[in-house]
Amino acid sequence: MNKKIAVLSGDGIGPEVIAQAIKVLDAVAQKFNHTFEYTNALAGAIAIDKTGNPMPDETLQVCLEADAILFGAIGDPKFDNDPNAKVRPEQGLLKIRKEMGLFCNIRPVTTYDSLISKSPLKEERIKGADLVVYRELTGGIYFGEKGRKNDGVVAFDNCEYSVEEIERISKLAFEAAQTRRKKLTLVDKANVLETSRLWRDVVKKMAPSYADVEVDFLFVDNAAMQMIVKPTQFDVILTENMFGDIISDEASVITGSLGLLASASIGAKTAMFEPCHGSYPQAAGKNIANPAATILSAAMMLDYFKLFEEANLVREAVQDSIDKGLSTVDVNPENPQSTSAVGDLIAAYI
Amino acid sequence: MNKKIAVLSGDGIGPEVIAQAIKVLDAVAQKFNHTFEYTNALAGAIAIDKTGNPMPDETLQVCLEADAILFGAIGDPKFDNDPNAKVRPEQGLLKIRKEMGLFCNIRPVTTYDSLISKSPLKEERIKGADLVVYRELTGGIYFGEKGRKNDGVVAFDNCEYSVEEIERISKLAFEAAQTRRKKLTLVDKANVLETSRLWRDVVKKMAPSYADVEVDFLFVDNAAMQMIVKPTQFDVILTENMFGDIISDEASVITGSLGLLASASIGAKTAMFEPCHGSYPQAAGKNIANPAATILSAAMMLDYFKLFEEANLVREAVQDSIDKGLSTVDVNPENPQSTSAVGDLIAAYI
Ligand SMILES: CC(C)[C@H](C(=O)O)[C@@H](O)C(=O)O
Ligand SMILES: CC(C)[C@H](C(=O)O)[C@@H](O)C(=O)O
Repeated sequence: MNKKIAVLSGDGIGPEVIAQAIKVLDAVAQKFNHTFEYTNALAGAIAIDKTGNPMPDETLQVCLEADAILFGAIGDPKFDNDPNAKVRPEQGLLKIRKEMGLFCNIRPVTTYDSLISKSPLKEERIKGADLVVYRELTGGIYFGEKGRKNDGVVAFDNCEYSVEEIERISKLAFEAAQTRRKKLTLVDKANVLETSRLWRDVVKKMAPSYADVEVDFLFVDNAAMQMIVKPTQFDVILTENMFGDIISDEASVITGSLGLLASASIGAKTAMFEPCHGSYPQAAGKNIANPAATILSAAMMLDYFKLFEEANLVREAVQDSIDKGLSTVDVNPENPQSTSAVGDLIAAYI
Repeated sequence: MNKKIAVLSGDGIGPEVIAQAIKVLDAVAQKFNHTFEYTNALAGAIAIDKTGNPMPDETLQVCLEADAILFGAIGDPKFDNDPNAKVRPEQGLLKIRKEMGLFCNIRPVTTYDSLISKSPLKEERIKGADLVVYRELTGGIYFGEKGRKNDGVVAFDNCEYSVEEIERISKLAFEAAQTRRKKLTLVDKANVLETSRLWRDVVKKMAPSYADVEVDFLFVDNAAMQMIVKPTQFDVILTENMFGDIISDEASVITGSLGLLASASIGAKTAMFEPCHGSYPQAAGKNIANPAATILSAAMMLDYFKLFEEANLVREAVQDSIDKGLSTVDVNPENPQSTSAVGDLIAAYI
């Protein structure tokens, strides 16, 4: 198989963790006789520094021509103190989501037995937790009309959803539930929001076509509680953009190992794969960041290419390195390996 | 002191827990020579059953004429399966907030040493946690224009905030921080939302007038993580309506004792005091629900009346009953007391 991959390393630890994922992809290519062609492109603070734009047109062009996008992280502390700054790295992320139509963000959260003690939650609460959040990523309050009025003393953000936007992600979430534990939980605020009522209507209408899937509805405030009280109750969580931002970040802490969480953002024509952690500027250039989340994101990319055997082998390799304690400082502070050493180990396993 | 109190017991366990709070208020009145006059009024599902309206005009009138409102809980499972139902108990809650101008919801979260083992979080994470959420309650996406368009295939909810709305609650939050550990954290999504940028602008402008308060800004997704990873870092959390709904419910689970969490909703002319738990219909009529949250809400009412000595005595009485293990089944499953017995004990202590 021959695949073109756009590589957007971005800022902070982005380049270091991406380098390990590419090492692993190369090992996969060699073992299974595939060809992965990488094209690097600028994104984030580094793109602002070089072009004034966090997501230059050339980068979007590279992405359009690729079969998939491998994304590191963007963000730089020099932009953090001023959310009013005209140009910010995060705008690049929102732009690529919108321009590439990446409407479905997927974030699996599982526990690793050997890491369970690192969770802020008690072991008996999280043992066996295995959920995935399907977050709508190109609609809602993120992309609605926003601005100021009345001479600037009033600000507004409009949240909008269409039936079509809800259907296309719900379809993916239902299908995922069918391959998992067959439970789908829609998280919304249907007792207050009209958009949530539309979500509920659409999901209820689709449910009979997935008769093997049990559908549940949970208000977002209750979901934020249940995620801590009993995370094992969840299988597939489906939700809109803003709630998904909050709930998926909340879910990511239950396992206590943010450095292991991968994500995929799926569109009609392409998809982007990205670790859940940010650019972690304090660790940049130190060869200490955990590359596992990025490598597991690359595994999700292999799934997207329908290279399931390859994807599972990558996951097995990551699991093996964790089980053997061959991890970076965040996971194994007693005997930490470097970023590149972990990448080498996982590539060698393959 | 002579105070008029509107009593809205509502649904489910509401009447039982309210009865205990009144017992305790009566004990306070007797000991300190105050007069509390109670007027009962209908709210919630019971009001729908009797009048077709979850918040009848007569109830609002009673509230207008009172110095404060003591609120039980509203909600009934018969409305739960249909968020599209034209009339729902929750509408009553939104209506009283708006009509009484209760713009500032206050939810303290503290740990009790003797209950710390009940938390889903590890003891070392929550020991010493002591925070309070100031949630804006009459603005934002809850009360913005909402509806359907394009023949119903698009739904929208508008989120709006004015400088004035932000200032009045921020003032209360800053003042609270001054009497506490002098730290205020604004939770927003200023990297995406225009309303959040206005919140940040206003809070930044006010900060110099409270020079003794350290001000911090946190994106809501990060806040949802930090609440679990390190809840002890928070003192006063200030946030808008929707984020406050999610974050305060999330915060309420860290202590593992929802039955102990009180709230106040402050307006310019009156205020409402209410336990954080809901109507808990499964327990209704069984004399097993924990009245502590309602009694502690009554203590917040005494604070509001500036009866600080009285308020502190009520809190001491509740603490004493917990320390002695004289609690309801949720807190003390081995040797549970009934709802009314806990009320009696706390009133007797006073
Ligand atoms: C950086 C920010 C705009 C972004 C979001 O809110 O979507 C991030 O939090 C995420 O979840 O990927
Ligand atoms: C019942 C509902 C409308 C309400 C809200 O969202 O405000 C509740 O969740 C609360 O927090 O008091």
